[in-house]
Formats: sequence, structure tokens, C-alpha cells
Amino acid sequence: MKNETRIKDFKKHFQSQLCFCLKSPSFADQKQEFNKRPTKIGRRSLSRSISQSSTDSYGSAASYTDSSDDETSPRDKQQKNSKGNGDFCIKNIKQADFGRREIEIAEQEMPALMALRKRAQGEKPLAGAKVVGCTHITAQTAVLMETLSALGAQCRWAACNIYSTQNEVAAALAEGGFSVFAWKGESEDDFWWCIDRCVNLEGWQPNMILDDGGDLTHWIYKKYPNMFKKIKGIVEESVTGVHRLYQLSKAGKLCVPAMNVNDSVTKQKFDNLYCCRESILDGLKRTTDVMFGGKQVVVCGYGEVGKGCCAALKAMGSIVYVTEIDPICALQACMDGFRLVKLSEVIRQVDIVITCTGNKNVVVREYLDRMKNGCIVCNMGHSNTEIDVASLRTPELTWERVRSQVDHVIWPDGKRIVLLAEGRLLNLSCSTVPTFVLSITATTQALALIELYNAPEGRYKQDVYLLPKKMDEYVASLHLPTFDAHLTELSDEQAKYLGLNKNGPFKPNYYR
Amino acid sequence: MKNETRIKDFKKHFQSQLCFCLKSPSFADQKQEFNKRPTKIGRRSLSRSISQSSTDSYGSAASYTDSSDDETSPRDKQQKNSKGNGDFCIKNIKQADFGRREIEIAEQEMPALMALRKRAQGEKPLAGAKVVGCTHITAQTAVLMETLSALGAQCRWAACNIYSTQNEVAAALAEGGFSVFAWKGESEDDFWWCIDRCVNLEGWQPNMILDDGGDLTHWIYKKYPNMFKKIKGIVEESVTGVHRLYQLSKAGKLCVPAMNVNDSVTKQKFDNLYCCRESILDGLKRTTDVMFGGKQVVVCGYGEVGKGCCAALKAMGSIVYVTEIDPICALQACMDGFRLVKLSEVIRQVDIVITCTGNKNVVVREYLDRMKNGCIVCNMGHSNTEIDVASLRTPELTWERVRSQVDHVIWPDGKRIVLLAEGRLLNLSCSTVPTFVLSITATTQALALIELYNAPEGRYKQDVYLLPKKMDEYVASLHLPTFDAHLTELSDEQAKYLGLNKNGPFKPNYYR
Amino acid sequence: MKNETRIKDFKKHFQSQLCFCLKSPSFADQKQEFNKRPTKIGRRSLSRSISQSSTDSYGSAASYTDSSDDETSPRDKQQKNSKGNGDFCIKNIKQADFGRREIEIAEQEMPALMALRKRAQGEKPLAGAKVVGCTHITAQTAVLMETLSALGAQCRWAACNIYSTQNEVAAALAEGGFSVFAWKGESEDDFWWCIDRCVNLEGWQPNMILDDGGDLTHWIYKKYPNMFKKIKGIVEESVTGVHRLYQLSKAGKLCVPAMNVNDSVTKQKFDNLYCCRESILDGLKRTTDVMFGGKQVVVCGYGEVGKGCCAALKAMGSIVYVTEIDPICALQACMDGFRLVKLSEVIRQVDIVITCTGNKNVVVREYLDRMKNGCIVCNMGHSNTEIDVASLRTPELTWERVRSQVDHVIWPDGKRIVLLAEGRLLNLSCSTVPTFVLSITATTQALALIELYNAPEGRYKQDVYLLPKKMDEYVASLHLPTFDAHLTELSDEQAKYLGLNKNGPFKPNYYR
Amino acid sequence: MKNETRIKDFKKHFQSQLCFCLKSPSFADQKQEFNKRPTKIGRRSLSRSISQSSTDSYGSAASYTDSSDDETSPRDKQQKNSKGNGDFCIKNIKQADFGRREIEIAEQEMPALMALRKRAQGEKPLAGAKVVGCTHITAQTAVLMETLSALGAQCRWAACNIYSTQNEVAAALAEGGFSVFAWKGESEDDFWWCIDRCVNLEGWQPNMILDDGGDLTHWIYKKYPNMFKKIKGIVEESVTGVHRLYQLSKAGKLCVPAMNVNDSVTKQKFDNLYCCRESILDGLKRTTDVMFGGKQVVVCGYGEVGKGCCAALKAMGSIVYVTEIDPICALQACMDGFRLVKLSEVIRQVDIVITCTGNKNVVVREYLDRMKNGCIVCNMGHSNTEIDVASLRTPELTWERVRSQVDHVIWPDGKRIVLLAEGRLLNLSCSTVPTFVLSITATTQALALIELYNAPEGRYKQDVYLLPKKMDEYVASLHLPTFDAHLTELSDEQAKYLGLNKNGPFKPNYYR
Repeated sequence: MKNETRIKDFKKHFQSQLCFCLKSPSFADQKQEFNKRPTKIGRRSLSRSISQSSTDSYGSAASYTDSSDDETSPRDKQQKNSKGNGDFCIKNIKQADFGRREIEIAEQEMPALMALRKRAQGEKPLAGAKVVGCTHITAQTAVLMETLSALGAQCRWAACNIYSTQNEVAAALAEGGFSVFAWKGESEDDFWWCIDRCVNLEGWQPNMILDDGGDLTHWIYKKYPNMFKKIKGIVEESVTGVHRLYQLSKAGKLCVPAMNVNDSVTKQKFDNLYCCRESILDGLKRTTDVMFGGKQVVVCGYGEVGKGCCAALKAMGSIVYVTEIDPICALQACMDGFRLVKLSEVIRQVDIVITCTGNKNVVVREYLDRMKNGCIVCNMGHSNTEIDVASLRTPELTWERVRSQVDHVIWPDGKRIVLLAEGRLLNLSCSTVPTFVLSITATTQALALIELYNAPEGRYKQDVYLLPKKMDEYVASLHLPTFDAHLTELSDEQAKYLGLNKNGPFKPNYYR
Repeated sequence: MKNETRIKDFKKHFQSQLCFCLKSPSFADQKQEFNKRPTKIGRRSLSRSISQSSTDSYGSAASYTDSSDDETSPRDKQQKNSKGNGDFCIKNIKQADFGRREIEIAEQEMPALMALRKRAQGEKPLAGAKVVGCTHITAQTAVLMETLSALGAQCRWAACNIYSTQNEVAAALAEGGFSVFAWKGESEDDFWWCIDRCVNLEGWQPNMILDDGGDLTHWIYKKYPNMFKKIKGIVEESVTGVHRLYQLSKAGKLCVPAMNVNDSVTKQKFDNLYCCRESILDGLKRTTDVMFGGKQVVVCGYGEVGKGCCAALKAMGSIVYVTEIDPICALQACMDGFRLVKLSEVIRQVDIVITCTGNKNVVVREYLDRMKNGCIVCNMGHSNTEIDVASLRTPELTWERVRSQVDHVIWPDGKRIVLLAEGRLLNLSCSTVPTFVLSITATTQALALIELYNAPEGRYKQDVYLLPKKMDEYVASLHLPTFDAHLTELSDEQAKYLGLNKNGPFKPNYYR
Repeated sequence: MKNETRIKDFKKHFQSQLCFCLKSPSFADQKQEFNKRPTKIGRRSLSRSISQSSTDSYGSAASYTDSSDDETSPRDKQQKNSKGNGDFCIKNIKQADFGRREIEIAEQEMPALMALRKRAQGEKPLAGAKVVGCTHITAQTAVLMETLSALGAQCRWAACNIYSTQNEVAAALAEGGFSVFAWKGESEDDFWWCIDRCVNLEGWQPNMILDDGGDLTHWIYKKYPNMFKKIKGIVEESVTGVHRLYQLSKAGKLCVPAMNVNDSVTKQKFDNLYCCRESILDGLKRTTDVMFGGKQVVVCGYGEVGKGCCAALKAMGSIVYVTEIDPICALQACMDGFRLVKLSEVIRQVDIVITCTGNKNVVVREYLDRMKNGCIVCNMGHSNTEIDVASLRTPELTWERVRSQVDHVIWPDGKRIVLLAEGRLLNLSCSTVPTFVLSITATTQALALIELYNAPEGRYKQDVYLLPKKMDEYVASLHLPTFDAHLTELSDEQAKYLGLNKNGPFKPNYYR
Repeated sequence: MKNETRIKDFKKHFQSQLCFCLKSPSFADQKQEFNKRPTKIGRRSLSRSISQSSTDSYGSAASYTDSSDDETSPRDKQQKNSKGNGDFCIKNIKQADFGRREIEIAEQEMPALMALRKRAQGEKPLAGAKVVGCTHITAQTAVLMETLSALGAQCRWAACNIYSTQNEVAAALAEGGFSVFAWKGESEDDFWWCIDRCVNLEGWQPNMILDDGGDLTHWIYKKYPNMFKKIKGIVEESVTGVHRLYQLSKAGKLCVPAMNVNDSVTKQKFDNLYCCRESILDGLKRTTDVMFGGKQVVVCGYGEVGKGCCAALKAMGSIVYVTEIDPICALQACMDGFRLVKLSEVIRQVDIVITCTGNKNVVVREYLDRMKNGCIVCNMGHSNTEIDVASLRTPELTWERVRSQVDHVIWPDGKRIVLLAEGRLLNLSCSTVPTFVLSITATTQALALIELYNAPEGRYKQDVYLLPKKMDEYVASLHLPTFDAHLTELSDEQAKYLGLNKNGPFKPNYYR
């Protein structure tokens, strides 16, 4: 088994707009159950690891991590925290102080989790919960874990990605008493070993799963199927993991309730529309220093991501064209003031091409051939096949790496196009995700755990659920104080008039 | 029975965002079945008639209508068109030429219906259809009726509102061979008489119903229940009518399939977001000539209507505050750059107050008392109870009508607030609805008729349906040529990758 | 002498961006001194009178004025106000109450003049001033006149336009003791008779002139040149009047200082950029009800007016193209996100054509021939020659008046273009000017009078001056309270650091 | 003499809006003539060097420069280019290839200079010109120098900043035959030695000066005053240099004409409004990854820089407050939709504070004390005294450097504020300047040289001039092709009507 087959979807924060595709039965090349490990996403795994390093390079934690010249495998080291506890496996417990500072900075931008901690000082809604988790190990995750702990849960944790662990954060968690099994640069064998160490502990059995990508769930299905008898539910965040759960459910093999937090409205709107509105500018500037004013840009796809990109670029003085396949989104683009064109109509004149489609082969070699000298090409959509980068790896074209994440591809006549992140997600590779956005996801995860753990018998069956609208609204409400925003309350009379409960939910589930 | 109880909801184009409320079982004061005629919406009917006259005052057709000094009731006149046909009842067949010009102007802004006519030159998808309709009789409706006719249908038509008929358009339709029974200024008795004349014809029985408000449907239920045996379906457009259908369905009394065109995505987005974005500016300017730049405005409610209002005012240089009860919409307002406040926080400082809530008693007397001198108050939301206008009709306050639709309400200390349209819908009372938007609705109605008429046995049961996503997309696609917009087509390979049919639908039904 | 030659420029509020052209010596067809009465602007005078009636039709005062069926000439009537004073000549003193209400409403939107009154309660900066004025007689002018009076001045006033007098306002002024000589619908002979009555009074001689268009100044030059010995200065507001003053000055014939209030920065920015930003939308909506979203628009000229139009339309979802002759403005258009094109490139595809150039023959017949069916054409620029309307008055084209200010011009093949206001200024013909904007001009006029009246000997010579920067800033500061805006004050240390006086001026005179 | 006294103003691209302050005679601490070397700007020199390194760190050239481990002083090395020429002194001639690539990349973004080269293929407007230059030695400067050469000039060049030289670019220039004397990290002695080597050459005497900061001019004044007999003019770009020229002129000591290219309209608008609109977002993102949506921001100062910042942040969903001292700018802020406040009103609630004033002590310790935890503070204005950073260097506050250019300043109660670039210019320290903007400046410099060199005797006296409007327009026109923008040409008839020459200038000199 190749190394990359193991790597799950890091791109959790940007793909959710595409969930409908994944649910489609004909989405054949991603269709899989847990006994059929994905084998075709090798390229994406490479993408992820590079993305992560890129993100790190702007992050304050990068230096500490890099300075570790110790080459001994953590599995071969015996480490204990200051209280003598050694039930963890990380790179270097001595980095705990650095990690603690990172966590503290993250706490400031995660007001909702901090509020949850406060509200839980009396009751412990997760008292008795034994959560086994498998996510990226970052400062934001640490805030989540420490919140779960404050709510009463015991936690054991592994990384869902072999590259994404912030070693110093893992150290701080271990120092704080968490059983963490993760380090940056695990081998495939390490990866499964860490997961196993989380799950397989004498005298301890998890009753909740928090997963990101489905590997932890898969491992338990495969190795410890009996554990599901005690497990009250699975909370899954990623597109890929949710897809696998739906496949399981379809096949009648899902044996506990699962909560799909990927598709909650708050997450969708924030991750796609609002974040991309900012990250398209950030990603382009950091890589190319391009001036936006007066530039002609074509944005392929006018879903939430495309809408965010178009709004930002228009506001900065770019002239934006849109391509679409869906007439409804196309009509929205028109009403929002964008010329709706076919790519071929504008490809010769545009300065920047941005894909946001979720589709593949949107920008093919034919279009790349016709672009003008200096045209910037990048992808904000789904996978790195939106731009047919493979078609550029031919002998007559010269590739020149001019900066990190920036390649000039040079035609025989001297024409250069500027390809960003080799066609991988620009926002993930070349800009950062604000902690505030991660906070929304983490809060949703925490509430999903609470809901599943405390739900009365029978509320949830062996199926995949969306978080109840009311809890979605609760997540939103916990983030309002950040903006010093003051919500209006319904009077009894108004609530009656509207036929609503004063405390919500205020909208039907399908409301976006 | 009072006159106004008969009048249905004219506000069809602006309320659809509130449909979920109406479906709520606790929405008691609107709950009704067809055997319980509504009796509490008297105020709204008044609202409508005034609205209509206001709208007319900007319309080119107004003069012809007004010039008719003939006081004879159309029911007492014998009129024939130039071909000798007399199966209609309208004000004055001589106005046909004026009406024809109005219809021709409307045709230019209704490209989708015109396209449907062209595509139907070969096959007649409504061949054999006998459509009985009850809608506003306007130039736009005429374009719809003549399209249905071109598609093969026979049509008989009555007005759904006693004031809204454009007499010269009715004349043009009668001259063109349509059996129209409608005039401006019908009495209640006239109203039902017209409907009956449409339905009750020797040797002719309708097989399709196109209704706006539910009165026609109600009449057939009450008087000719056997007709439903031959009726293939009901197409209903208004919030009120849809609500009545859901009540019927709930009570198990709906005996044919019904199509709810009110809630189609295209209609929702256009009518609410895009139209209100324009009509808030238009309505305020026409009534008050207020300068928007620098004005402080509070918008109550951040649904689609509120979003449209806020975007427009922000773009014109106003400083906009938002109030909300729903934390998710509240968070959107924050991310879109609006201060989220309680009304009490800003009521003393704002220059303009706009309600877009669908709620009642949002702006109560207490707030009106605190407003500053010259504050403008208006309603873009649902009913005229959003602003508690009744509370202003007290002896200590003086009302002064300063223009059509504009009242100064004067406090004892001389403070004036400027109340627009007595709290009724500003956009309906003081601005116009672009034909292009009506085109979308009319096209949806036509397609809904085609779908229900041609659906194979069993596709639709005795229930209320949304138009299939694919047809929603088709409506959108028919409106793209107006913008010279060019849709991209999926390749076979791409369609397979996405698991989509190349011709759509491209999104799940719940996509907004 | 033709009637229209007498009529001065009403379009004062919208042309100031073009002042530089007028000052150009080669602007031959407008060149004139006061002894050469203009004879070529007949067309514009027509334009103006129609504009005024159009503006009236949206004003609340229109009805009172129209209701006067009395056909006796005011010159033949003997009227006295309630105090027995008869030194005025107006339509009907009985309308004074209506006029007073109009004035009171205007006062609310003219905070700066009201503030001037308050500050002048102690000292009377215009004590002893005898102001003779010739302006439009509107509620806003009345607020100005009553302010001048409160500041100590005596005022005698005539109208600068034979159509623009609001009779009821004139009545209120007469009732209040002002010697007003003006009514709506004066003949040419009346016009000069009124001016003469203002100036030519036994035992009273003016020492200040407030003029709008230069006719009053001209009359004194011609008839009573000796009066200039006592006159301390002229305040002139209009483009035309300022132009005439510059001509006089050039010819060495200007014998008192004159203040050009047309070119003050506040007036320029407000009248052009900010007002046009709003009035372009208002004018288009009121006339055509066009939906802006998705419309393709070409704006000819990217000066302040063009900038305002483009910003507004872009914000409403239109796709905007710009034409320019000046590379600097062109580069600004590019950076602001507009495609810079030649008119011929887009003329076939646009839905709306707007001229804002100050040039002539910008939209010529050739372009009109190429426009698509339904294209709307209008002018926001200078004179009605920007669109070559004359070229449309040919036999093969049919004109159809579809609404007030809206003509369909129909080509032989049935194509229609929609021409607004016959090519005259859209904002003047089809929308209103906010009182707040007029307030800025009126305040500037008042301050200019104060400055000239109180200036020490020698500060101003026989030349045309701009209002000192500091007073321009003072006008601005008097309008800030409307927005509840709080200015920051420099500390002594900061003022020293910047080399500025703490009270301004804060910018060099040329700052825009 | 201290090292830092020698260092001129690097911040040339962002301060021009403040020129009026600098010209003020009371701007005492900057007042100086060339015989009084500035001694008080030590802090700013430090600022500059750090800024430069920061800018480098995002530039593609950084790596080559850094890799030079050779510690020998260039003055001690004997180097020759491939043609045997040794009349230069740079770090390492072997880096020429790397430098050439940088220059080629820059050429693509400097279309106007490339166009000048083309147009000069026939005539050489600088034939015979001997230009001595002292500027930053960057790829963009290289494009300028090679353009001057193509136009016929001989060039000798030194650096105007001891840190800003891109060594590999200097190498490429030397290889290309230019006499360049510059390297990164010169000592003060090196600095003057390099300048002297440019000027003091047996048998060669300059006849044109291109200066940036005034040091070259100063050196010639001091050491070789007789040279001015042959010098036709000085072209000066920086605020500081222009200020020194005005001082010289005032003192009657300026003995040749000088061209102030700092204050040309194109440069002003581009550098301030358009660039800051982009760089405020870029600078904040790169340093803090802050999410803009919903953030409350106060921008101090609403000049061109403030306008750019406010527009960008508003577009990204921030809520923006403005402070101003000038009522006119204040009124503009109001009309543009910003609440005008005093800093004290909002200081407790804002998330970001941005200074754009040109003033000092705008954000003083008192305000810093009141800011909320996590507040970001940065400067886009003039000097690093806008924020009173010195007041934060007190024992009770802890400084923590969290990233490059980012400090946390921590109060005893744990509150942190996030200070960017230690209060120096954010856009210079933490973002990049697009080559396109530098292109405008460089083109203006080239045209100014051509104008002065070719001007007929007597056109320019011994004074400081702005570039003629027409040449400003020419610079703009040369940059239009970048945007594929098509300028409209006046017809003869139109030009006559407007009183303009068909080729410009189109606006008066003061037009902005």
C-alpha cells in the first residue's frame, strides 16, 4: 500500500460546497466503503503535505517545529510529562511551553468554546464521555480538546494527517495530561500505530468518536467492531469522511448514529463565501504581488466560493467575468453584475483565471495555450484537476519555480503563464485560515458530541444526521459576542404570531 | 360578509421569504380552510387597493383606464369583438388598441415566454388543455395567456383582485378571442360572478387551474366539486393560496396535485434579494427625495429582503444597522459589515427605519416616541403590522398628508416622523415591479401547467409540490439571453465525474 | 430679442465640473460680455423651463401653485401683507401659509443656515448690508433670505427664471416683510420689470449683489452703473454668471470684487459626485422602471459626474463600460474596475447609454442607428447637445411620447430607442435635488456675502475670487452635525508639527 | 556624523499626500538646506532598513543576495564585466544572470518604459545627455536606466540607500555596461564614495541629475558647484528631496531648473488611493491573518490614503469609523458612508486602529491604554510618530515579538495589543509595491528628464516645477494598454467646442 493512500482530506474547510456531488451514486471514482481503501487520491495527498508546510511558513509555530533536529522516532523514546504521566507519544515534551502559548493565542479567537467551558462549570454535559479523536493536531484542536475535557470528557487523540501535527501543541497537550499520539512526519505505519494506541487500551473503551476523514472509524470497524456496542455516536467533519458514512449507511452497515458537521449552514457560509472572499486576495497577493485594480479576471463557477471570489475582486477594482453550467447560478451572476461568458470568449484577454467549480478539466491545455503572456492561473475549488496541470508537463514547455508555490510555465515562443500551487487549492496552499472560522467548526463538533452523547434513546437511529437547526443557531449565537452583536428577542406575542419558539429554531432546516 | 374579506393577497412578489411561517401550524390567525373564508385581513385589502392605484400612477396605462367615464356596469353591456365574439365581460372593447400596445411593450421584457412560444411552434404541449385562470389582469398576464394559447391551451380568465385589472388589457384580450371576465372596480358580487362565468359554461369543463390567492380553487371546491374529476392539477402562485392548499392537504381534502410556484428558487431570489435591492432606493426617493449619503439607517430583519435593502443602502453611502432574532442571519449581517444592534440602541439616532421581518409590532409606539425629528419609517416586509401604525392614531398626535403615500405624524412638541404608505409595503405602494421579474413568475406558471398537464399518471399525487429543480433551472436559462449570458456545457466526461446529467438538474432541490 | 435669451442657467447644480471649459478663451460660442446679451442659448433656456416644471411635478408645493386660476397679472394687483406693507409684487399673498410650511420643511434640511442664525444672535455680521438678489425663488432661497435678514441685512429680491418661482413661497416672504418681485410665468417684460423694482427704489441703494446667472448684475451695469460706487461686491453662483464675470474681468470692466461660489470644493463634490450617484438611479427608475441588475451600461465621460454614475450603477449590479478622452480619467476608470472602451465597441450590446462629458455630439446618429431595440439613452452631462437629438428628428423615424419625459424613437424596422428628457439633463428633468445639497450652496452664498461685506479695504480687488479655503471648510463644518459627525481638533503641538493653524485652513486651495 | 543621518527617505511611494505639510515653514524639525545635513531622522533610517529587508523577504531576488557569503568589500575588489569594462563597483559581477532575469520580469510590468524605447528607435531624445543618478538600485530602476540608455543617454549611478540595492541587479547593469556604484550594506563612507565615483570622472561631466532624496544634489552643491554650469536640470522624486529643493529655491540658491515628480497627479492617485486600497489588506493579512469580515476598524485621517483603506475594508465587510480634523474630508467620509467620530468614542470597541494622518501623536498612550485585548494597531500614514510607540517602551509593559514585524505589547493585567512594524509604515514594511506603480513613477522620471533636457532656453527658470499636465497625461496614456483600454479621440469640432487641443492637456493643472 502506497504511503499516500492513507492520507485523508485536509481540505475540509473549503470543499463543503460540493457535498452534493459526493452523495451522488455516480461519483464513482470516490465511491468507497471502509473495506475499500481509497487508492486514487495520491496526488491530493501530496498536495496536502505541501499545503501544510506552506501554511506553516506563515504561522508563528513554524520555527519551533523546524528546530527539532532530533531524528529519533518518538515511538522509540520514553517521555513523561512533569506529573510523571507517560501515556502519550509525541516528538518532544520539552516544547510544551511553546505549545501552550500557541494554544493561549488561539483561545482568544475561539470565544464560543471558551463560553462553553464557562457555561459548563456547573453541569458537565460530557461527564462519563470517553472520546477518541482523530483530527489535525493544531492549537485550535487543542482548544477543542481542553473544552471537551472541561465539559467532563476523557480524550485520547491521534492525528488524521501525517504532516499536519504541530509538535509543540502536541507537547502542551501531553503535558496537560492528554493521551496524544501524533507527530509531524509520521510514516504510514506510525499513522495506524498511533490510531491503534488511542483505541486499544486495557480497561478503557471509547463511547464517542470524533473523526476527520474516517480513518479512525474505519480502523475500529476493521479491528474492533465490538466496540460499537458501547459507542453512542460518530461526529465526522470532512467531506470525505461524510461520504464514507453515507456509503456505509446506504450499505446498511452503519451501526451507530453519525453527525455530519460538514454541512451545517454556519460552516458552509463561513468557510466558503466569507473566507474565500478574503483568501482569494490574500493568496494572490502573497504569491504574485499582483495589483488587482483594472485586472481582468475570469472566475469559473459561481457557487459560494465563486461568489466570494467575485465579490472581493470586484470590490478591489478588477473586471470579473464568470463561467457557469447551472442557469440559476448564472442568473445570479448576471444580477450581481458579472458578464457570464464561456471561457473561450475571454481566455485570450484575461489576466487571472480562477477555478471554483468542483469539476475537473475546466481549464484544459487548449485554454492554457491561448492565455496571454503573464496570465495567472489558480484554483480555489475542489481538487487539483480543475486545472489540467498534467497537460502542462510536456517536453516543449519549460517549468521555472520562481517562488514557493509559484511556477512559470514557459511556452516555446517565450510566453509565460504563472501557475500557483501547481493547481492545488490556493487558499490552503498560499493563505491562512482564520482561527475564527476554525472556531465555528470546532464548536459545532463539540455540540454534536454533546447532542449525540445526551440524546434520549431513539432520537437518533443508525443513520447520518445534520446537526439540528437549533444547535446550528446556537453555534452562531456563541460567535456573536466577538462582533459585539446584540440579538433581538421575540416577545411572547411575536413568537405566537410567527408560530415559533422564542428560543428557535427560527428557520426551516433547509434555509441557507 | 364585508367587501374586503374577499380580497386576496396582492403582495405575491414580496412575501415569499416568509412561507415557512405560514406553514407553521401555530400561525393561528391566518389558519383557514376553504370553507372558512378569511375575515381578518380587511386591513390588508385596503392596503392593496391603494397600492395598486399608486403603482398605476407611474404606469403608462393609467390614463386610458381613468378616462373611462362610462358608469354602466359591464354586466349590463352587450359587447362583441371585431370578429363577432361576445363571450367575455369587460369594461370597454374599444380600448383594445391601447391594451395591445401595452402588451407589446411587456412582450419585450418577457423573453422567456416569447421563447416558449417559438419552441412550441411544432409541438403544442398544452394541446387539449382547458385552463381556467384567476390572476391580476395586466399586460404581463396577457403575455402569459397568449403564450398558453400558443402552446395549445384554451383559456378562460377572471381577476383575482377587484381593483387591479387594466381595462384596456382586458379589452385587447377579449378582442384577441379570450374569454375574459374582469374590470377595474368590481363589486364583491361582480367578483364571484366573473369567476363563475369562467368556470360554468355549458359544454366546456376546465382541466387545469391557474390560481393566485385561492379564490377560484375555493369556488370550484364549493360549487362544482365534481369538476375535480377532470382537473389534472392546480398551479398556485401566492403565499396565501399556497397556505390554503397546504391546509387542504393537511386536512386530506386536496383532491388533485398542486404546484407551489411561490417557493421556486428563481422567484425567491429575484423577488426578494434583487428586487428589493432596487425598490428600497426607488420607494424612498419617490416619496421623500431623501439623500442616502451619510444617512443612518436601521434595517429590521436580515432575510433576503433585508439583505437586499442593506446592500443597496450601504452602496449609496448610508450607515446601516441591522436587528435580527435569528443568530445565523445575525452572523451573516456581521460578516457583511453591518453592526448588529437592538432597535432601542439606535432608535434615537437613525434617520430611516425599515422593517423587513415578516413579524408584527417590530416598531412599536415606544420606539416611534423616541425617534428623532424627521425620521422616515417604512415597511418592506410582510404585512402592515410590522410598524404599529395603529398606535399612532391617537388624539395627541396630528397626521398631515404631505404627498401621496407620505404622512407626517406630529408629536405635541413639534417632532415629526415621516410615515410612508401608512406602514404598508413600500415597494408595492411607492415603486414599481420590473416586468422582467414578473416574467420569471409567469414563465414558472406556464411550465408548471405544462408539467402537471403532461406528467405521466402517478408522478404527482394529491399533494402540494415544488416545481422540479430542473424546470426551475429551465426558467432561469430562458432568462439568460436577456443578459447576453452564455452558459457553459458540461462535457460527457465532466458530467460523469460530477455524477450529473448534462442537462441538469445541477443542484439538489434545497439549494438556494 | 427673443424671450428665451433672457433665461439664465438653471442647471447650476450640475454643471460645475465643466467650469474649466467655460473659462477657455476658445469657447467662442458662449463668449460674451454684459453688453453682448447671449443669443445662442435659446435651446438651453427651453430646456430649463421644462426642467423646472418637471421638478415641480414631484414637489409637494406643486398643487398649490397650480390651483391658482387667477389670470390677472400681479403687476395689475394691489396687495398688502397683514401688516399693511405693499412693497412687493407676487401672485397671491393669500398663499403665504402654504409657503410658510414649505419653508419650515426646508429649514429642517438646511442646518447650516439655521446654525448661522443662532451664532448671529449677538453680532450681526450683515448689519447695514443692503442685498439685492436675483435667484430662483424657492423654499430653500427663502431660508437663505431669512437668514440674511437675521444676520442684519435688508433684502430685495427678484427671480432669475421666469418659471421657477414657487408662488406660495414668494407669498410667505412678502408676508414676512420681504420685498419680493416674482411669480411663476413672468413675461420677458415682467422679468426685467421685477429686477428693476428691486434695484430702483427711492432712498434705498444696494451695497451687495447676490446673483444667479448674471442678469441682475447686467441690469445694474447697463442702467445704474453709478450704483457700483457703493457696492462692496457680487456673489455669483452659476456657471454662466461666473463666466460672464470672468469675461468682464478680462476686459478690465469689473469694477467691484466678485466671489465665485460655483467652484468651491464642497459644492463641486456634492453636486457632482454625490448627487449624481443618487440621481442617476432615481432619474432612470422614475422614467423607465428599468431593473439595473445585469444591465449593460456605457457611461461617456469619467469626471466627477461620470464617477458618481458608474459607482451607483456598479453597486446596483449593472455592468458598466466607460469612454474617456483624458488618459488620466481613463486610468482612474480602469483602476476603479471599468472597461475603458470606444463607444463603437459596445454600442450594439448596451442597454443604457449615459452621457456625462460636457462635450457635444458624443452620441451621434450613427451610434443611435446601431443601438439595440429598447436601448435607453440619457444625458447627465452639460447641455442637450451631448446626444445629437436633432439628428433623430427626421421623417423616417417616428417619435412616440410614452410618458412624461420619455419618448420612444422608432426606426423603420420597428426598433425603438427610449430617449429620456429629449436629451436634456436627466437629473434636473426627472429627479429632484435634495435640499441638503442646496443648503451647502446657500450657506456658501451667505458666507461669501459676509466675507465681501466685512473684508478690510484692499483684501479683495476688482477681480473674481474663490471663497477662501477656510470658509469652504467652515461651510462643511456647519453641515457635519446633520450626520452627527464629530470632528477631531488638533492639539497645539500637532498644529505646530503640521505647520497649520488649529482652526484651518487644513489643505491648500487646490485640494479636491 | 552618525551613520543614520545619511539615509534618505525610502518611503517615497507613500508619503506624497503629505507634501503640503512639508512645504510649511513651521515644519521645523525637518527644515534644512543642503549645508545643514539632517540629523534628527535617525529613527526613520532604522525604520527604512528594516522595511527594506522585510520587503525583500517576499521578493524573488532575496535568496541570491543572501547567499553571498563573500565578506570582502567591493571597494577592495577588482571586477570586470565580460567585455572587459571595469568602470563600476558592485558586490559580485557573477550574479549578473540572476539580475537579468529579475529585470526581464520587471520589464513585463513596465509597459510604458518599453513603449518609450520603441518610440525612440528613430530619434534619440536624450542623445548627448549625461545623466548621473542616485536612486534605489532595483530591477525597476534597471528598466528605467536601460530605457534612458536606449533614448540616447549615458548613465552613471549610485544608490540612495545603503540597504536597498539588489546586488544581482547591480551586477546585471554592470555587465550591461552601466557604471554602477552600489551594493547592499554600504557603510556611510562607502555611500559618499559611491556618489563621488559617479560624479567625479576625468573627462566626463554630467548635464542631468536624477535624484531620490537629494543627497546626490547635495554632494554636487558641496563639492563640485561649478558642475551646475553645464547641468540642465534636476529631476527629484522624493518628498524629502523635493522639500530640500523648495528650501533651496526659497533661499535663492537653486541654480538650475528642477522637476518635482513627486506631486504629479498620476503618481499621487496611484500611490495613495489605489495602492493603499490594496496594501492595507495585504499588510494586515500577512502579519496577522486577521479576518476582516465584521471587524470594527477606526481609520484616522480621510485623505487619499485613508480613503483607500476605508474603501477596501468596507468592501471586505469591516465596520469602519473615521476620524478627521478637516471638515471637508470629514464631510466626504460621511457621504461615503463612514461614521465620523473622535478616537475616544470608539477606542474601547475597535479591533483595528489604522493611522493615515501625516500628523504625529495621533494614537497616544492614553488611547493605547483603553484599547481592548487583541486590538491591532498600525500606521499607513507618514512617519512612525503617528502612533506614540515611544510611550509603550515603559517598564510595566512587556514586549513580545511574535512574528517578523509583529509585536505583542502586554499590559500588567494581561491585555495585549498587536503592534505592527513598530508603528512604521505598514505598506512598506509588510506588503509589496506593485511594479506597475513603480512603472508610473519611473516613466514620469524619464519624461521629466526628456522635458528638461530638450526644453528651449527660458521655458524653465531656476525654480521647482511640476511636470506639465500634458506629460502627466502622456504617462497615463502609456499605461492604458496594460488594461487593454481604448481612449476616445476628440473630433476637430468637439475640440473646438471645448476649447481644447485634440492632444491635450484636457484638464487644468490643478485637476485631481
